[in-house]
Amino acid sequence: MISIKKLEKRIEDSRSLLCVGLDSDLERVPQKFRKHKHSQYEFNKYIIEATNKYVCAYKLNTAFYEKRGLIGLEDLKKTIDYINNNHPNIFTICDAKRGDINNTSRAYAEFVYEYLSFDAVTVNPYLGKDSVDPFLEYNGKAVIILVRTSNPGSSDFQDLLIDGRKLWQIIADKAGKSWNVNGNVMMVMGGTNINELKTARKEYKNIHFLVPGIGVQGGDIIKILEAGIRPDASGLVIMNSSRGVIFAKEPEIEAKIIYENILRYLKLR
Amino acid sequence: MISIKKLEKRIEDSRSLLCVGLDSDLERVPQKFRKHKHSQYEFNKYIIEATNKYVCAYKLNTAFYEKRGLIGLEDLKKTIDYINNNHPNIFTICDAKRGDINNTSRAYAEFVYEYLSFDAVTVNPYLGKDSVDPFLEYNGKAVIILVRTSNPGSSDFQDLLIDGRKLWQIIADKAGKSWNVNGNVMMVMGGTNINELKTARKEYKNIHFLVPGIGVQGGDIIKILEAGIRPDASGLVIMNSSRGVIFAKEPEIEAKIIYENILRYLKLR
Repeated sequence: MISIKKLEKRIEDSRSLLCVGLDSDLERVPQKFRKHKHSQYEFNKYIIEATNKYVCAYKLNTAFYEKRGLIGLEDLKKTIDYINNNHPNIFTICDAKRGDINNTSRAYAEFVYEYLSFDAVTVNPYLGKDSVDPFLEYNGKAVIILVRTSNPGSSDFQDLLIDGRKLWQIIADKAGKSWNVNGNVMMVMGGTNINELKTARKEYKNIHFLVPGIGVQGGDIIKILEAGIRPDASGLVIMNSSRGVIFAKEPEIEAKIIYENILRYLKLR
Repeated sequence: MISIKKLEKRIEDSRSLLCVGLDSDLERVPQKFRKHKHSQYEFNKYIIEATNKYVCAYKLNTAFYEKRGLIGLEDLKKTIDYINNNHPNIFTICDAKRGDINNTSRAYAEFVYEYLSFDAVTVNPYLGKDSVDPFLEYNGKAVIILVRTSNPGSSDFQDLLIDGRKLWQIIADKAGKSWNVNGNVMMVMGGTNINELKTARKEYKNIHFLVPGIGVQGGDIIKILEAGIRPDASGLVIMNSSRGVIFAKEPEIEAKIIYENILRYLKLR
């Protein structure tokens, strides 16, 4: 099944738009998991078992695994294998933010899609079309273009005006239109500026957005849903929470609260 | 010693401005190395021993190692350790093109500077200042900002005009001026457009440029030297060749030719 269809099926079945980010920085993982050799993997299994019925997707950021070198990469691989084996219907995102010249991007595509077996990867568009092609062409896998990020510095370049349009909009135009010939493009659209999200939804009606920034970064779930899901558009919003869920005192309760808020909103519509 | 000083010392001692890119894609590595368990590492050792007297730096692109998963990361680690142990004066660049929100970039900085022990890393600036800060603040290590790349798609966004200046120039202004408070910033400046290189040298006199694109990508060594090294500027150009050297029939001869061309030019001045 092509990855975007897998995501849509999972959303339909779970009624969830929550993505939990397994940013399992070992320094913040509770002490009891740290005694294990595969400490990040053991912690992730615990989080996955606590949250899987409330999520449509898991997102793993490579940074927190690579930081630990070989053992971290092992834990990353064991975690994605665990999800694929035990919860094969859940959509998986490798938050790698890669992007390089063409033949090099192809090697990254093999890393995330083949070696690690993720359904999707986040890609940095700064190097242009040929740097994104190897991901776009990868046999039905999903590609999530970094369009608008939610961090404080995002405005440094993403807000620059080119003939009256912001840089992120120029990139969104490319990503959402000319790059999407295989129907496998998604976009990162930060959740901290609701008006931008509204604008983007009007312009790219059929693209699913990955919205980081709920929870710790301050994004408001209901406002994001109002802006990102419209009766005249088929594109959905997948909202990510990482630290806010996984390092909560009770991750299950935290995920459940977000899930129920989403469910309530969807039923109200 | 802070990393930029290490680079300058190595250039002074070796009289070389050549960086060899160990993009040791296993599919292109000669058959005789592939029988080893650590095939990329064995190949890299051979290349390093053949070329070290002609280089100021080695650059390793993480993609070609990550593609192979754990064994690739092991070969990457063994290679950088080999360089650091046997040729400690050679400047080392992790061509990782990373960049993420602040706390995540910090994890990447630990990966490349701490776990792998590189002197420098390439960083993608699209997420803005706070995504680059963890690299800039890392205790004397060098940060090479992707300003202008040499691939065909680089013009998609890097050439966009903002009030008469191209996006890559806006990024170069930030990188070369406001981000360079610790004096550890370098820039990637593609070698395929000589006029841009000239312009950049005039504007950022004290910044060292990493120039990819010589050899396979078509950059001309002498023109790059003329444009990038000026009597009124202290910034140097480090020229990278990857495939053109390492997959040459005789890598040593190939590196030597480039080295001698550089040397001849420097003496002529």
